[in-house]
Amino acid sequence: MSSSDIFLGETIGTAVLILLGGGVCAAVTLKRSKAVGAGWVAITFGWGFAVLTAAYIALGLSGAHLNPAVTVGIAVQSGEWGDVPLYFAGQLLGAMAGAVLVWICYYGHFTAHLTDHEATGGSGAADGRRPGGPGPVLGVFSTAPEIRHPVQNLATETVATAVLVLAILTQGLTEGLALSGTGVLITALVVVGLGLSLGGPTGYAINPARDLGPRIVHALLPLPNKGGSDWGYAWVPVAGPLLGGAAAGGIYQLAFA
Amino acid sequence: MSSSDIFLGETIGTAVLILLGGGVCAAVTLKRSKAVGAGWVAITFGWGFAVLTAAYIALGLSGAHLNPAVTVGIAVQSGEWGDVPLYFAGQLLGAMAGAVLVWICYYGHFTAHLTDHEATGGSGAADGRRPGGPGPVLGVFSTAPEIRHPVQNLATETVATAVLVLAILTQGLTEGLALSGTGVLITALVVVGLGLSLGGPTGYAINPARDLGPRIVHALLPLPNKGGSDWGYAWVPVAGPLLGGAAAGGIYQLAFA
Amino acid sequence: MSSSDIFLGETIGTAVLILLGGGVCAAVTLKRSKAVGAGWVAITFGWGFAVLTAAYIALGLSGAHLNPAVTVGIAVQSGEWGDVPLYFAGQLLGAMAGAVLVWICYYGHFTAHLTDHEATGGSGAADGRRPGGPGPVLGVFSTAPEIRHPVQNLATETVATAVLVLAILTQGLTEGLALSGTGVLITALVVVGLGLSLGGPTGYAINPARDLGPRIVHALLPLPNKGGSDWGYAWVPVAGPLLGGAAAGGIYQLAFA
Amino acid sequence: MSSSDIFLGETIGTAVLILLGGGVCAAVTLKRSKAVGAGWVAITFGWGFAVLTAAYIALGLSGAHLNPAVTVGIAVQSGEWGDVPLYFAGQLLGAMAGAVLVWICYYGHFTAHLTDHEATGGSGAADGRRPGGPGPVLGVFSTAPEIRHPVQNLATETVATAVLVLAILTQGLTEGLALSGTGVLITALVVVGLGLSLGGPTGYAINPARDLGPRIVHALLPLPNKGGSDWGYAWVPVAGPLLGGAAAGGIYQLAFA
Repeated sequence: MSSSDIFLGETIGTAVLILLGGGVCAAVTLKRSKAVGAGWVAITFGWGFAVLTAAYIALGLSGAHLNPAVTVGIAVQSGEWGDVPLYFAGQLLGAMAGAVLVWICYYGHFTAHLTDHEATGGSGAADGRRPGGPGPVLGVFSTAPEIRHPVQNLATETVATAVLVLAILTQGLTEGLALSGTGVLITALVVVGLGLSLGGPTGYAINPARDLGPRIVHALLPLPNKGGSDWGYAWVPVAGPLLGGAAAGGIYQLAFA
Repeated sequence: MSSSDIFLGETIGTAVLILLGGGVCAAVTLKRSKAVGAGWVAITFGWGFAVLTAAYIALGLSGAHLNPAVTVGIAVQSGEWGDVPLYFAGQLLGAMAGAVLVWICYYGHFTAHLTDHEATGGSGAADGRRPGGPGPVLGVFSTAPEIRHPVQNLATETVATAVLVLAILTQGLTEGLALSGTGVLITALVVVGLGLSLGGPTGYAINPARDLGPRIVHALLPLPNKGGSDWGYAWVPVAGPLLGGAAAGGIYQLAFA
Repeated sequence: MSSSDIFLGETIGTAVLILLGGGVCAAVTLKRSKAVGAGWVAITFGWGFAVLTAAYIALGLSGAHLNPAVTVGIAVQSGEWGDVPLYFAGQLLGAMAGAVLVWICYYGHFTAHLTDHEATGGSGAADGRRPGGPGPVLGVFSTAPEIRHPVQNLATETVATAVLVLAILTQGLTEGLALSGTGVLITALVVVGLGLSLGGPTGYAINPARDLGPRIVHALLPLPNKGGSDWGYAWVPVAGPLLGGAAAGGIYQLAFA
Repeated sequence: MSSSDIFLGETIGTAVLILLGGGVCAAVTLKRSKAVGAGWVAITFGWGFAVLTAAYIALGLSGAHLNPAVTVGIAVQSGEWGDVPLYFAGQLLGAMAGAVLVWICYYGHFTAHLTDHEATGGSGAADGRRPGGPGPVLGVFSTAPEIRHPVQNLATETVATAVLVLAILTQGLTEGLALSGTGVLITALVVVGLGLSLGGPTGYAINPARDLGPRIVHALLPLPNKGGSDWGYAWVPVAGPLLGGAAAGGIYQLAFA
């Protein structure tokens, strides 16, 4: 793959990933959206099909990593680190572009939500309660834990990402699966499953670009009453997934190679 | 493909698409349906599997565009515009036929809904509230925005359709995927994802025929108390998807060809 | 295929279909089940994956019709009627066996439901209301319309079944899809879609054996307070699907052959 | 396959299976999880995609049984019992490891749930009620019946497992399906279907290792106020699935071989 194909593929693909992934968070949590109250099942399938759509589009250009943790896992497994910075750059730029696209598509809903909220405590639970205020708006961009405990939060992100990257690395062991439509589909459903199973504590970033890029955009966008961008937590969804991706690469080398 | 196969395939396929797509809106919103209150997840999967069923049936005849935006995207990408009017004609005719079939299958429910409603304000939110009145009935046929802001509504429809058409155009880049069963399945799940992620503001027409054909049928059908057909909004779900499809064709030429 | 393989395949396959399809109705509607209140989405996916499981098991033996309407559609399309009685016999026997298996698996729940119900009107709506009494128990075995209007009910069953059988017949037009795992999967998701979209009025039998076999079992089983088996409606979910299947065979011959 | 590959594959795969399967139970039932109240649909898809992820990872090493009932069914069908103890050992060890990983990922939620519960009767129904107390915590690890009736409970587990194992054994009859990505995907959706349809009475262990391994871990872990591990029921989700797996092997030999 050429450098420009890698950069273009990762940028376009990650932009689509965040457009659709941030989009489903907006759809389910912001006021005056048709999907308000659709709940956790909608969010997890929305993120999974965001991966499906984005990976499907980018597959032919860059192999569709769309996630620095996947890039690190593949680098650890293969020993080839040369294209890693290029992948990272495209992923971060794409994630920022995707977050801006969410803002465009839900412009009026962000405004309605932030200016017309009822103060109901800010809980993001998936059971149909729909709080107003800045919490859900930041939640469209970045993840936040329900119980703020950095060690557990880091462990959850690390474990969940290790499972994701291991599932991607082992694709090549099943005939005809790597870089195929069926492989993309299965990876997307793995992401749905990770959200359902391990998303409860931290909201499953499992992708540093998914969290950091939109958080930067949240800090820059002129949203009214948007509140802070919770930079104190920002290192967890970067460090955890990178650790998990590297661990998966190592496990693959030890047990599967 | 022969002209008659194209016309037949697009007519039959788009009729099935609207029968099932309009059907799920009727199922979830009209009174005395078993699916009342099943919510946004049901609607988005219903539309996605409507695409699956329709595309699967029409694939061998016409390639299963079933959407003028897809036809435009392919024409921009390929430079071949000769069959475009034939595709458009089949799609519009099929969409109208499908809307009539929905009316037949849910005949008693339309009547029960329009003659026995409780006035609860007309909101179409997906959280189990079930308003009566003409709003949901028009919603079985055509889309309407939650926040009426033409520029944002047009942007949302354009962006969502561009993602859809780009995902279809890039099928050919993954081995064995274009015009295959796996390709149809993935495209259907992409449509589920677009509904979950970008359907919140406008109800995601992402297809001019899907919106215009049934709106014409709504205007013509002898439904009691049906109210107006909201022609003031009708240009948005036509123009947005056509713009989005053309944009996807251009992006494909620039970045993927 | 040998006669004994056809009969065995259809009997085992249809038994699995009704075990899982009747099972999800029991799971969602009977008291003291873990799935109570899981709603219409659970029911439609449950029936779809019942088709997936049953068809997957029976495919190698009988081609997995599992539905007299499919058998009729294929006979109309191919002109070969010789094995039709054998298919019908296996399907009806299997459907009855499956209904007995549901009774075994949910034995205590049937009893608890019928002896400990609250009289809440008997509605079967999918929104979490959980009425007691004989209505939901019959609903585990057979379908019933929400609005009892034989002409509309027949039309809905006919149209829905025609779409199903047309989707199955057109499998052969997409390369490598007929009688493959991907073909079975897509057919199963088509059934989920038909339930979501056209199941609202009648509960979508779309299969005469699915409705008649379990209704016979309901009439024979020694359930306390079970009420009548609603034989006045029983002809609709037999006649409608057979008409729909035959219509699909005819449409296939006219438009696709 | 080498002995070490079998052991490694079953251990890693079953650990992932229980991590994600136990994880979705924790996500939906424990306090202060984002998925609280997401319900039975979330649980059944979560377990199904747990199978998808785990089987996908382990397929190349051990063939991904991940379930003693599957191992027994294959042994009955093939007559080869030599590797059975090795499979069993990996499965039990992996199930215990997975349960420990769930505890790590949801550490704070277990504590919050057990120390801050409201006594609401302990029901595990899927309709949004969220009881506190030890019942849901044990439910993260092991299954329990809603109606405690050993004969019916055993029958339900036996029947459900027989369907699962029969569906896996018949994979080889459909071209290109056994040990392929599509085969893994269909098996995972079969598991979703079994949960929706037959999970209501007992919570569908359908896998002795899935129930016994985590129950041992529940007995050993230092959870506050955790209550007993319900050893009186523990034989049912071991014996039923083993009987069902053996029955499926026998049915396969009689009807399909």
